[in-house]
Amino acid sequence: MKSIFEIKDETIINAMMSDAEYGTLALCSDETPYSVPVNFVHEKDVIYFHGSLSGRKMRILKQNPKVSFSIVENFSLIASFFSSEEGLACPATQFFKSIIIDGKVSVVISREEKARVMMLLMQKLQPEGGYRPFKDTDYDKMLNATAVLKIDIENLRVKFKFGQNLDDERFNMILSHLQKRDSKIDKSTIEMMQLQRGEK
Amino acid sequence: MKSIFEIKDETIINAMMSDAEYGTLALCSDETPYSVPVNFVHEKDVIYFHGSLSGRKMRILKQNPKVSFSIVENFSLIASFFSSEEGLACPATQFFKSIIIDGKVSVVISREEKARVMMLLMQKLQPEGGYRPFKDTDYDKMLNATAVLKIDIENLRVKFKFGQNLDDERFNMILSHLQKRDSKIDKSTIEMMQLQRGEK
Repeated sequence: MKSIFEIKDETIINAMMSDAEYGTLALCSDETPYSVPVNFVHEKDVIYFHGSLSGRKMRILKQNPKVSFSIVENFSLIASFFSSEEGLACPATQFFKSIIIDGKVSVVISREEKARVMMLLMQKLQPEGGYRPFKDTDYDKMLNATAVLKIDIENLRVKFKFGQNLDDERFNMILSHLQKRDSKIDKSTIEMMQLQRGEK
Repeated sequence: MKSIFEIKDETIINAMMSDAEYGTLALCSDETPYSVPVNFVHEKDVIYFHGSLSGRKMRILKQNPKVSFSIVENFSLIASFFSSEEGLACPATQFFKSIIIDGKVSVVISREEKARVMMLLMQKLQPEGGYRPFKDTDYDKMLNATAVLKIDIENLRVKFKFGQNLDDERFNMILSHLQKRDSKIDKSTIEMMQLQRGEK
């Protein structure tokens, strides 16, 4: 069953992945979870990130390659009185976009593929360029000393929460409170609310 | 061994926890990790969050109460040429603050304690007030239907990465590039760089 909050549009999902500078990688070994933020780049059904060859991430991944990877974009805090005049705290919430991915990690081995992935990462995070291409042998040592990791995406759930579940009265009350408060994030929230409402 | 990036000052840690609207909760059961963002509030050695009584989070936590909880505050992307004129991509990085917590979750049972935690959450996320106190019996049904969860913090690592490892020349090159680019996040990054450098 598709929830009212679930997003399936690939263009929207790709845009969110491209905008996000980092995601949180969740790992586990011996029933002990570990989470750590990483910069990443997305390509088709794959997420790439890199890290040190030693260290906790690599130690755990060698034991158990299963990961959960999440990306969050936070929007306005919605005060309880934005959508209700009954004076209860319950309607208080926060609007957000999230992507939660289940996948399996493998290690990228070949120099050529490692160089290609590092280039993808650089193109995303330093689009202005200003560095020599990775085929340059000056990168050999660095590439040897760096772990380049690939998450094969097995499952991906995208949730946008922008009041899609609310009746028109409550939805419009929130809109007008946000328009009054009018912070930078409120402007983006209003835009997303209207976009999601329009698509229903 | 304390890393040059590690922060121990409790005032700084508490401020970061108070500013963060959400953290990412990482769980695991049967060696399968699961991550999900949650709003939270921090009090002494404890993190509180709430959620639905059913659903994946609660199902996993009943099997395995161990969690990793992470909070990230992202700062400027540092282009490779900000700190080096050799033309290699390697110095490219991103400055950030992160807190990674290991802990164990338990369920808050009593109506009184659940009400107190919900009040702490509201005070953090809706400081402007505007709702009736949780002792009101109108909240009974909601409190019954809500899971209030407590993470006992067993280990907490705070990392601030603001170029503390760089020599003066590279550090000052980055500062001057950020001053030139001068985006909103660059201004905050410069402030944090100078603060961390001053404290060395």
